[in-house]
Amino acid sequence: MRREDERRARILLSRLAEPYDERVQQVVAEHGVVETVGCAVRDGRAPGGADLGRLVARLARAEAVDDERIAGRLGARILVPGDPEWPDGLDQLEHPPWCLWATGPGDLAALADRSVAVVGARASTAYGDHVTAGLCVDLVARGFTVVSGAAFGIDATAHRATLAAEGSTVAVLAGGVDVPYPRANTGLIDRIRRTGVLVSETPPGGAPARMRFLARNRIIAGVARGTVVVEAGLRSGARSTLKHARELGRPVMAVPGSVESLMSQGTHAEIRLGAELVTDGAEVAELVGRIGDDLAPVKQGESRAADGLTEDLRRVWQWLRPRSSSAVDDVMARSGLTLRETLGALRELERAGLAEELLDGWQRRPVGAR
Amino acid sequence: MRREDERRARILLSRLAEPYDERVQQVVAEHGVVETVGCAVRDGRAPGGADLGRLVARLARAEAVDDERIAGRLGARILVPGDPEWPDGLDQLEHPPWCLWATGPGDLAALADRSVAVVGARASTAYGDHVTAGLCVDLVARGFTVVSGAAFGIDATAHRATLAAEGSTVAVLAGGVDVPYPRANTGLIDRIRRTGVLVSETPPGGAPARMRFLARNRIIAGVARGTVVVEAGLRSGARSTLKHARELGRPVMAVPGSVESLMSQGTHAEIRLGAELVTDGAEVAELVGRIGDDLAPVKQGESRAADGLTEDLRRVWQWLRPRSSSAVDDVMARSGLTLRETLGALRELERAGLAEELLDGWQRRPVGAR
Repeated sequence: MRREDERRARILLSRLAEPYDERVQQVVAEHGVVETVGCAVRDGRAPGGADLGRLVARLARAEAVDDERIAGRLGARILVPGDPEWPDGLDQLEHPPWCLWATGPGDLAALADRSVAVVGARASTAYGDHVTAGLCVDLVARGFTVVSGAAFGIDATAHRATLAAEGSTVAVLAGGVDVPYPRANTGLIDRIRRTGVLVSETPPGGAPARMRFLARNRIIAGVARGTVVVEAGLRSGARSTLKHARELGRPVMAVPGSVESLMSQGTHAEIRLGAELVTDGAEVAELVGRIGDDLAPVKQGESRAADGLTEDLRRVWQWLRPRSSSAVDDVMARSGLTLRETLGALRELERAGLAEELLDGWQRRPVGAR
Repeated sequence: MRREDERRARILLSRLAEPYDERVQQVVAEHGVVETVGCAVRDGRAPGGADLGRLVARLARAEAVDDERIAGRLGARILVPGDPEWPDGLDQLEHPPWCLWATGPGDLAALADRSVAVVGARASTAYGDHVTAGLCVDLVARGFTVVSGAAFGIDATAHRATLAAEGSTVAVLAGGVDVPYPRANTGLIDRIRRTGVLVSETPPGGAPARMRFLARNRIIAGVARGTVVVEAGLRSGARSTLKHARELGRPVMAVPGSVESLMSQGTHAEIRLGAELVTDGAEVAELVGRIGDDLAPVKQGESRAADGLTEDLRRVWQWLRPRSSSAVDDVMARSGLTLRETLGALRELERAGLAEELLDGWQRRPVGAR
């Protein structure tokens, strides 16, 4: 019963208050959704007696809407925390969505579990589009779902390349899932609806208002296990997606480009602020995979062990992969050490239990072996 | 007398042993140059009785050379540690040079004091050359000397752009200062000799042998206050210059480029390993200047204070300059925060004594004011 009440309260609340309404978020954090909405309905005030202002003014109209019926008619489902399809960790956002509307054949939680957000400037360059396409095709080959925002530029290229590679893609919209925006991308958005998942926290019919675009970015960051920005001007909204990913402790990545391109100024600024520079899908997969591993207790030990290494050892260790071997030549080239230094470091890592030699090269020692 | 003995011993030693001869370096570290060379001359052995091998075999020929006379004839000077012209901190290299040969009108120590090494691939691209030229012109305008290796590609472009901007440039050669190499750069090297400083640890007449190129890179890193690599393949020697700069605790910087350019693979790898991404002369100057400041005691406090800041505060603080103000707009764009967040962060930095508001914007609070 409690779960049903919570679900109803969240759906109603999504018609009453934007998720970035700090006052409502505070009341909910203190009293819970059921109590907050119940009080508003009963007393026209918040549980503590605080004025909820416009929220109450919207009550009558919101109560008249039957969202479950609307969902049925649209072929959409309404997700709330605790549902099997609710993406892992989405509630850890500073302002989590009240609920999510989803449509499309994919299972959002399952797709999110191995996913990367690929986002960027609307005014992308040919370079940015080209890199985005290569990155997405590569991520699809590694079994990743690509999450983006269906906007012009990098977003649209990310979805298109993923679909072309027959991969799974999730689009998070700022307006309702029945309000394709930008209109010129209606065809693309329809294809995502047919093959992947369309997601929005805005109820059906809701307009893609400016604040909702900014709010939408946090959901992209919250659904995906890591976020890559391919191109971004200094003031690009894509940078806010990175900020949310960082707040969630998820990998934050940026692709470099010409120092003379305005569309790389934002990615360079992010790298200077601590985002990881990535140049291909392998590097993205390594980072997103690594954090996935880091959440498991044993690998944390491994990462802690690596923290204590000397610089040369870390250089070499960082280029070893956990489940496939790397040739010494390759490790040497990537680490920038001499052959002697590389071999020395590998032997030392072996002694420390952090690396092992196979027939065709070296790999990180499997955790269970320690 | 002691200083004269040391000088004579170092000059003789530079004819006897390459500075990367670990065995000789060990004996010298233990017994000093005077004792080591004295013993070799007297007993044909090291002070502890160890065999110095080929060093002793070279003695007779080396003693027959009058290097002070050669220096006089070449218009060169021989520098040893303790000389006013000996660059600060050069002795902190793992294998410091025995002595340096210098020629040209510049004062090496004075130039080194505000200098940046700009190095990179021999097979530079048009992009790399263009960025190098812009960077050097910018650094000259900020009063920096550009240090490089006179090689083809990025090195030559760095020297040429610096000379074109009427700046000071220092070339560190692998062979003797009278052995211009590569030969095609003889004209360029002659211009540096006439206007800046040519430096080498290899005695006059010495060939630019392969090992000496690698050894030369550590001197570039040791002379300059920071090192930027503009373009580098994965196996580029320029990466070893960065490695030495890092070992000296000096700023290590790399310029990003297209992820599809082989000549940016090395710079991207370095950024992934911790090199600071830089896109223009201002960013280079800020880093090299900052470390310079960090050596002064009070600024260290400032940097420690910044270490404890929240991410938003650090983002904002990092874009404030110490001696000129930045507009709020500009700080906002660079930090990637909203206007509200930026203003909030500035106020908080002000309360912490780390920033102050001027008529036309904000700046880092002068150290003396705290």
